Amino acid sequence: MSDFRYAVNVMPKPGILDPQGRAVELSLPHLHVTNVSKVRVGRRVELTVTADSEAEGRTVVDGLAKELLSNPLIEVYAIELLEGTSSVTSKVPAL
Amino acid sequence: MSDFRYAVNVMPKPGILDPQGRAVELSLPHLHVTNVSKVRVGRRVELTVTADSEAEGRTVVDGLAKELLSNPLIEVYAIELLEGTSSVTSKVPAL
Repeated sequence: MSDFRYAVNVMPKPGILDPQGRAVELSLPHLHVTNVSKVRVGRRVELTVTADSEAEGRTVVDGLAKELLSNPLIEVYAIELLEGTSSVTSKVPAL
Repeated sequence: MSDFRYAVNVMPKPGILDPQGRAVELSLPHLHVTNVSKVRVGRRVELTVTADSEAEGRTVVDGLAKELLSNPLIEVYAIELLEGTSSVTSKVPAL
């Protein structure tokens, strides 16, 4: 059994209203930013799965993403396998 | 001028309380999931920058991440350059 760290990125579906993204867009002029557009705000959930294989871990994450972490009617999700404990704190860039 | 699409992943700093992550952890037993741990919930903001170069675009995103999209006292952020319009809807895996 190994520990695998995943991120689930949950974003509003294209065409679905995104009030948070709109709020960010509306505050851009106050920061004198004029070259930013198409802002969408979603969630990112990072979690650790203890499993026999990466494929088995991913199946667990996929189930959670569908049942608990996203609303499939209005959101889409994507799963990332992370190196280290968090893509945000690790020294290795996510790219 | 070209359009560059970025994602900013904002996560609670290690050690900072994360009530949303805790809520997910507490609901796992109800879904009969016992092999998931260390859940952290953050935000993901995707946006398009019109700039002369990727480096220039990234500077704009970095400024926004600091001033508008994250609270540096309790959160850390990481910037990703995306292919296509969204990592979640594109066919190319983010890895």
